[in-house]
Amino acid sequence: MLGLMQDWPLLLHRIIDHAAIQHGTREVVSRAVEDGALRRRSYVEIRSRALKVAKRLQREGIALGDRIATLAWNTDRHLELWYGISGIGAITHTVNPRLFPEQIAWIVGHAEDRLLFLDLTFVPMIEAIQDKLPSIERYVVLTDAAHMPQTGLRNAVAYEDWLAESDDDFAWGRFDENTAAGLCYTSGTTGGPKGVLYSHRSNVLHALACAAPDYMGLSARDTVMPVVPLFHANSWSLAYSAPMTGAKLVMPGARLDGPSLHQLLEEEGVTMTAAVPTVWLGLLQHLEATNGKLSTLKRVVIGGSACPRAMTETFERKFGVTVAHAWGMTEMSPLGSFCSLKPVYEGLSGDALYDLKVKQGHPPFTVEFRLTDDAGTDLPWDGRTFGRLKVRGPAVAGGYYRRGDDILDDRGFFDTGDVATIDPAGYMQVTDRSKDVIKSGGEWISSIDLENLAVGHPDVAEAAVIGVAHPKWDERPLLVIVPKPGRTPGKDEILAFMTGKIAKWWLPDDVVLVEAIPHTATGKIQKTKLREMFRDYRLPG
Amino acid sequence: MLGLMQDWPLLLHRIIDHAAIQHGTREVVSRAVEDGALRRRSYVEIRSRALKVAKRLQREGIALGDRIATLAWNTDRHLELWYGISGIGAITHTVNPRLFPEQIAWIVGHAEDRLLFLDLTFVPMIEAIQDKLPSIERYVVLTDAAHMPQTGLRNAVAYEDWLAESDDDFAWGRFDENTAAGLCYTSGTTGGPKGVLYSHRSNVLHALACAAPDYMGLSARDTVMPVVPLFHANSWSLAYSAPMTGAKLVMPGARLDGPSLHQLLEEEGVTMTAAVPTVWLGLLQHLEATNGKLSTLKRVVIGGSACPRAMTETFERKFGVTVAHAWGMTEMSPLGSFCSLKPVYEGLSGDALYDLKVKQGHPPFTVEFRLTDDAGTDLPWDGRTFGRLKVRGPAVAGGYYRRGDDILDDRGFFDTGDVATIDPAGYMQVTDRSKDVIKSGGEWISSIDLENLAVGHPDVAEAAVIGVAHPKWDERPLLVIVPKPGRTPGKDEILAFMTGKIAKWWLPDDVVLVEAIPHTATGKIQKTKLREMFRDYRLPG
Repeated sequence: MLGLMQDWPLLLHRIIDHAAIQHGTREVVSRAVEDGALRRRSYVEIRSRALKVAKRLQREGIALGDRIATLAWNTDRHLELWYGISGIGAITHTVNPRLFPEQIAWIVGHAEDRLLFLDLTFVPMIEAIQDKLPSIERYVVLTDAAHMPQTGLRNAVAYEDWLAESDDDFAWGRFDENTAAGLCYTSGTTGGPKGVLYSHRSNVLHALACAAPDYMGLSARDTVMPVVPLFHANSWSLAYSAPMTGAKLVMPGARLDGPSLHQLLEEEGVTMTAAVPTVWLGLLQHLEATNGKLSTLKRVVIGGSACPRAMTETFERKFGVTVAHAWGMTEMSPLGSFCSLKPVYEGLSGDALYDLKVKQGHPPFTVEFRLTDDAGTDLPWDGRTFGRLKVRGPAVAGGYYRRGDDILDDRGFFDTGDVATIDPAGYMQVTDRSKDVIKSGGEWISSIDLENLAVGHPDVAEAAVIGVAHPKWDERPLLVIVPKPGRTPGKDEILAFMTGKIAKWWLPDDVVLVEAIPHTATGKIQKTKLREMFRDYRLPG
Repeated sequence: MLGLMQDWPLLLHRIIDHAAIQHGTREVVSRAVEDGALRRRSYVEIRSRALKVAKRLQREGIALGDRIATLAWNTDRHLELWYGISGIGAITHTVNPRLFPEQIAWIVGHAEDRLLFLDLTFVPMIEAIQDKLPSIERYVVLTDAAHMPQTGLRNAVAYEDWLAESDDDFAWGRFDENTAAGLCYTSGTTGGPKGVLYSHRSNVLHALACAAPDYMGLSARDTVMPVVPLFHANSWSLAYSAPMTGAKLVMPGARLDGPSLHQLLEEEGVTMTAAVPTVWLGLLQHLEATNGKLSTLKRVVIGGSACPRAMTETFERKFGVTVAHAWGMTEMSPLGSFCSLKPVYEGLSGDALYDLKVKQGHPPFTVEFRLTDDAGTDLPWDGRTFGRLKVRGPAVAGGYYRRGDDILDDRGFFDTGDVATIDPAGYMQVTDRSKDVIKSGGEWISSIDLENLAVGHPDVAEAAVIGVAHPKWDERPLLVIVPKPGRTPGKDEILAFMTGKIAKWWLPDDVVLVEAIPHTATGKIQKTKLREMFRDYRLPG
């Protein structure tokens, strides 16, 4: 027997409708890409402009299921495009501008994007690869006529001119809540990029679950600055959860340096913000240099695979700002867990608190965790045993765009590719990537733990650990080091430094000095390439 | 094009699974109905017992779509039943014990309930009407063998004995998220009771939306005492939203008096609680008499149609407890709005703050408001114009159980039957019930406003206003008064008291003194009966 409640599909434009109706005067403040000036709009205006976008797209011939690429910073224009595109059932393909140009050409071709909306910043890059983007019918530059550059981009038009050909007398599309709304490709350290195809339903549920007090904790009284980009999997839900709750939005545009962010934090009264550690490093260095204050900020969400403990301590002890470490991935919309305090840990303070806060934390309702060995057998949640971390939920990928492979296990869980422990209180801690963990005699050794330990040596600038074949143990760890300028630490010296700080059988079998370690476009160590470099390497006797 | 996210239906048992896995040691503390002692269980135990319930129900022959009645207080047993029943796709019909026995017989018959689970409190009442409950195959008394009374109830069994015949080796049912999960009948001041049939989806979405900071604001660190009953439309989401967030639950059982509640608040460290004003009146009188403190309580949610201003002030000023007025109805699962502070009102203090706090507030995302006149034309949100309040959303009724009538307007909105204003900031204030508002010369007069004003007169114990036919104005207000003992205020005296405090044309055309005003089973003024009493009444002049 079915219930008798109303049929009210979870559609993304209902969020901007709610913001306009219930929080209409709240602002979306954006730093203009053109000149860095601040532009103020209300949610009423954002909704009106999103409706214009939707109507204008239809006139452009865009229909349900079409892919529209954006290559853009966090601004009001990106936000209104976002709602306008999904509002007719088309799909926003947010392209990460940090990818290599060839990768961008590949994913735009794979997605068969029909239009590309791009910020001024990216015009030269796209001009250079335009001939590799045959699917793009038209380029819309996110600016007005006054700032429109001379460009050879096909059918190029200034966004404000394009939008002026429309009005907001438009009704949002009506379609299934499982309709695709967004497309985001993983940067993919192995294999080609893979497209995650979000739905209206998945994004709405993700935003609802993440807005709760122990996660993003958003209120109508908050002022939220998403430094994490819209092109990075929905800016960790903030492009949806902030309008959903009526929080004011502060969009930093192209300027993510410490002084620019600090100005916005203080002048706009930001109470909550979110970004990766490198961004906060810049801010904290600026505050240090200028003896700056954070007078309104209450909470910082720090994402990425790991959050440096010293950064958490500085925010909390020096500035009185609470830090929550968040973990997730493109395939999870992206949020999977937050390191907020459950009662069992509520009394912690000092070192014990910061030991906990380096963990990736616990999942909200709608995210399920599973920890297994390679054979798929469940492992204990004891805080010590590490295994493959698998996840399940309505905002977790069930497949990739235009790939037929089945990516779920026998119980419907997606393998994150992370190796982790989970403690009895449900707190997860990532210890490695599963393809990087070293499998020695049936036991696993965390390459990340060894790297973190090695970089503590005063002569080491960067360290990477890979597994190399071993006749008896299957694999053993090889430590690859970039020494600091002018230093040449010896193998025995490094190993002596590490001894006693880890289990004896974790100690690398060899240490090799190199000039540089290869990185991906987004700055991660490229271990596939490193393994290739050491393909013919043999461990000493 | 559909998205490629996982198929993860919104099923209620996922909530208790999440609680057991992520917040397993958190307690559900219940005051036993038998003797008032406190019983402690963890979410792991609640889930285990809910699985036993589910398995035991299947053995009893209960299947998808069957209705199971409960007549029970807020306890751990009621909670585990709740999850166990819906976990096999059966439907929990929560019966309100405050209804008249004939009404209970009517709704149990209408629902065709197969089993009735009842607390000891209600055994005598049900024994008296058992012959009017032919659909009930078996009565399960929520107690153990030691406390099981002698009873002639058909196939009666003590719950703990019944449950002991099962174990928790059971897999939850798999079904559509729109499957019915709960049934609750409106008390219905006009017409017969009407059954609202909640679905898994509607209850999950309602709990997700209500857990957010500006509404229930629940965290894993909270200790929540739902005084509002499970039989009153899901205890305002708390039976779902507390386990969803990992909050500890304190269930007050049958003792809702001031001293009993105060003991639980203090001894269990309650941080958040919710009930109707009459309950809080009892608590505040007890605190006054004993000079009691509220040392852990931070937030009180007060529901019902109106929250007395003096109560809000006492909680906030004397005890430092924040009050949020919540409004809703059975047809809304039940929450429709909360009077939390948007930034536009954040600076209010003193009288201005408490003037705002008597409003019913603003809706969370997933609830839409509409204000119309009788013809269905939209009215302005100016804080003055009052009209019919209509609502739309995934947790709002689209129809009633076993009734064919279409209850939605042309745009899919449900008419709440309330007459309200909405101010420019989106805050709604109920001014009357639409069937009680007096329609005078095309304009509306609020009967509630007149009643509130009249009871301010020192000689008036209770007041009710109804509209009576008038040849020129269609209707005019008649004020019916129960005077205080020994007092006989005159018509002119009452009208003089009211003059100047309302628009002149709102003044009642007549004042009549009566000995008593009729009430419904749940204590509301029964205006249908009052109108009947004055059917032959003619206005003077």
